[in-house]
Amino acid sequence: MNNNAQFLKNIWYLSAWETELGDGSLARTIADVPLLFLRTDDGVSALLDRCPHRFAPLSCGQVKTDHVVCGYHGLAFGADGKCVSNPHGPIVSALQVPTFPAVLRHAAVWVWLGDREAADPALIPDMHFIDRAGPAARVEGHLENEAHYMLMVENIMDLSHADYLHATTLGNGINTIAKTKVEVGERSITVRWSADDHVLPPVQDAVMPRPGQPAFFRNDVEWSAPGAMVQTMIFGPADQPEQIVGDSVTAHVMTPMSATRTHYFFCHTSNLVSAQPEMVPQIREILLGAFAGEDSPMLAAQQTRIGSADFWDLGPVLLPSDVAAVRVRRRMDQLLAAERGDSVEQPA
Amino acid sequence: MNNNAQFLKNIWYLSAWETELGDGSLARTIADVPLLFLRTDDGVSALLDRCPHRFAPLSCGQVKTDHVVCGYHGLAFGADGKCVSNPHGPIVSALQVPTFPAVLRHAAVWVWLGDREAADPALIPDMHFIDRAGPAARVEGHLENEAHYMLMVENIMDLSHADYLHATTLGNGINTIAKTKVEVGERSITVRWSADDHVLPPVQDAVMPRPGQPAFFRNDVEWSAPGAMVQTMIFGPADQPEQIVGDSVTAHVMTPMSATRTHYFFCHTSNLVSAQPEMVPQIREILLGAFAGEDSPMLAAQQTRIGSADFWDLGPVLLPSDVAAVRVRRRMDQLLAAERGDSVEQPA
Amino acid sequence: MNNNAQFLKNIWYLSAWETELGDGSLARTIADVPLLFLRTDDGVSALLDRCPHRFAPLSCGQVKTDHVVCGYHGLAFGADGKCVSNPHGPIVSALQVPTFPAVLRHAAVWVWLGDREAADPALIPDMHFIDRAGPAARVEGHLENEAHYMLMVENIMDLSHADYLHATTLGNGINTIAKTKVEVGERSITVRWSADDHVLPPVQDAVMPRPGQPAFFRNDVEWSAPGAMVQTMIFGPADQPEQIVGDSVTAHVMTPMSATRTHYFFCHTSNLVSAQPEMVPQIREILLGAFAGEDSPMLAAQQTRIGSADFWDLGPVLLPSDVAAVRVRRRMDQLLAAERGDSVEQPA
Repeated sequence: MNNNAQFLKNIWYLSAWETELGDGSLARTIADVPLLFLRTDDGVSALLDRCPHRFAPLSCGQVKTDHVVCGYHGLAFGADGKCVSNPHGPIVSALQVPTFPAVLRHAAVWVWLGDREAADPALIPDMHFIDRAGPAARVEGHLENEAHYMLMVENIMDLSHADYLHATTLGNGINTIAKTKVEVGERSITVRWSADDHVLPPVQDAVMPRPGQPAFFRNDVEWSAPGAMVQTMIFGPADQPEQIVGDSVTAHVMTPMSATRTHYFFCHTSNLVSAQPEMVPQIREILLGAFAGEDSPMLAAQQTRIGSADFWDLGPVLLPSDVAAVRVRRRMDQLLAAERGDSVEQPA
Repeated sequence: MNNNAQFLKNIWYLSAWETELGDGSLARTIADVPLLFLRTDDGVSALLDRCPHRFAPLSCGQVKTDHVVCGYHGLAFGADGKCVSNPHGPIVSALQVPTFPAVLRHAAVWVWLGDREAADPALIPDMHFIDRAGPAARVEGHLENEAHYMLMVENIMDLSHADYLHATTLGNGINTIAKTKVEVGERSITVRWSADDHVLPPVQDAVMPRPGQPAFFRNDVEWSAPGAMVQTMIFGPADQPEQIVGDSVTAHVMTPMSATRTHYFFCHTSNLVSAQPEMVPQIREILLGAFAGEDSPMLAAQQTRIGSADFWDLGPVLLPSDVAAVRVRRRMDQLLAAERGDSVEQPA
Repeated sequence: MNNNAQFLKNIWYLSAWETELGDGSLARTIADVPLLFLRTDDGVSALLDRCPHRFAPLSCGQVKTDHVVCGYHGLAFGADGKCVSNPHGPIVSALQVPTFPAVLRHAAVWVWLGDREAADPALIPDMHFIDRAGPAARVEGHLENEAHYMLMVENIMDLSHADYLHATTLGNGINTIAKTKVEVGERSITVRWSADDHVLPPVQDAVMPRPGQPAFFRNDVEWSAPGAMVQTMIFGPADQPEQIVGDSVTAHVMTPMSATRTHYFFCHTSNLVSAQPEMVPQIREILLGAFAGEDSPMLAAQQTRIGSADFWDLGPVLLPSDVAAVRVRRRMDQLLAAERGDSVEQPA
């Protein structure tokens, strides 16, 4: 796949956390489409953020209950995109803002940019763990990264990077040494790391009853197109496999903003945070230190070196640890080709 | 018309206020041409701001009386573009800077980028109101906007925007409610708004004998290609149509710098300012609040949404209030096509 | 020659002063190639600054003795580019970073981007004056300029610019008035300025026994492709030609970073600095005042006016003082054409 803008249309994009939208509105560009999200009585609405009259962004106007007034000439549009007020003349049928299917689910706003008929909310990746945790026990955030979303996805599908890039917090060699298994499903690809007798990374080790002692460790990431990943981690003392000390689920969702910029949405939950919600700020700081402080500059630098070249054309030397990332990239190549109508041979 | 650089050549461009030039020089890019304006004994001269030797900007050198010395290798050129000193050898005829017809008129510098023979100063739009007001009673300014000049022109040709974008100063609904009439002349297009019994916008209402009372209101804008607009406004109490309280004339001149940047020159005069020139700073503040504080970001946002697309290709939904703006845009399309030598059908 | 990236490959590029590299490493882009220079026991190594795995810059990792560890996934590469550690699997032969011939010479790092077999260090321009002066008596520096390297080269090949651009320090008309002679060698082009009875520029005049008196003056610049220039200056009282007051040698080396950015490496030595090494900071300040304070903005402005146009297409009006610069530009055109395999006619 090439770094040029090639985005799936018939797919749900996580576009915001519900807390970002609040009771009002939020302007955000998803896959090169400028959108205005409006909170409605029964959910959320996604409008093209562009007045049909003279193309001013509606987000430069005023958002009222269930409608938005363009700040340039006062045209008002409802959450369904239909004009509700035209101070300059009759409301002709052309006075309408394109809208996109949008739903609130799992404390997030999801949008569908493709064929409206196909926008089935059942296709949204399952992230019920977010609902179960509840608002007080979530560590959620939104970052903007200067890298193609596929680089951001591959970063999570190969967590061995944590052993080097996050060596003081989330990695200590365990992801590299762990056994790796990849499962390819019809709509998901899952990678499972497991180790039975290894000291944990600093952040996990610190919550163990006896830090510095070997542990068992299960770390799974399940990907759904285009960039939704759910990471499940379980660990405890190596000699007491029945004692689960840590049990966390974290969403890492990469949504393209443009060909070289990516929204990174994360939401971390765990048994520890549920028990002690006062830990949220401290864990947020650890995660931001890793995601914003370490991943973000490294992936921006990686993007700079790739430039506008096609990833495959550069001849990457792939390692065993890349197996899940490569599966995902090839799946995305197929999905994009299918949307374009190319005939693609399925690999064996 | 497309946002790509398409500029008329055989036309006068307002390029600076005379006060900006002063007794010296001014470097400014007009329609992608970098120019150096030099004050001369009998007026102004416009040189290509590029030394013919090694292409350093002459504006990086020293301006002396009636000539400029290139700061890189010391070549000197007169206001007529001819080399007057070459420290490195003979003054060959090729040592010459291209010049463009330029005149001072209406307290402004005007330049002509096309066929020299056709540069008739009589083609400069009539702005004698500027001369009549005199320097002390003018509120003049120059802004740079991040928008195509046609968007800037259309902003003035449809002043109904003031009711929404400048609702605390220059608009209160009156421009929207006013009767509109458009007159198409051979070299100008005029739009006239009139209302006979409506409260005035805040800025005008404040100078009425009895604020908050209905007024009569005449507001005309006359456009000349490519971006010179003269706005004449008259108002007074609705019940005393013989009592003219306010009588102002304002120039709004949009000169392209490049395909997406525009010089905005304004000059406001009125009976009130003539009577009380000490009001100039206060009125300048009001106008800058509207033009720089409100128009400029809105039009830059509009430009961002349009990007490099052709305005018509985006399918704008035009309103009755757009009639003058559309007339102007079509006239510009014709003038540009005519300069390119395209055959164009005149609309009926 | 056109401003687009057209760089010689089979040539030595001065890429850093040895003091910039120190005992560690240095990342720098040369002719659009991102390089990582590593100090080794016996010299220096130049690696492509891009991990062959997923293209992260190696310079974002950790440099150890004689090897570098990629900061993203922990792959380690020796100074010869070969993988020395792969935590994720076997070291396959493809796990290798491209390297480029690099040598330390004349207190500088030199790299060769072309055919490895042809990389003969004997082709490095002779700058033994740097070694003779020794570290304490050198005034060396590195600047980055926003101009094509050929503009930077021509700036030095025509030092008459100093009389105008550096009129308060390095020029006073003497370079303009001096006799000029150009010698075209097989691998170099030399320009010689000489004057026998002229007051020196301010900086040189200040060290004369009797400032303000006429002097003899010899100022030579020898160019080697693509951008290495050695300037030798000798001066003393006009009436005592045997008394050499000043005797300096200065390297001005222009190395392309990209099509519009240039590394400027300078190294000044002289009998005066050798006798009084405490003068180094003061002389550095004078040179930076001229090179960074005056040349850099002027050449960036020149580049802006040229834009992406071909220099010849703009029709420069050449002066007698351009003779050496033009010889160099034509030689470069020939060398570039020869590398591309074009057939080029030699001028008579």
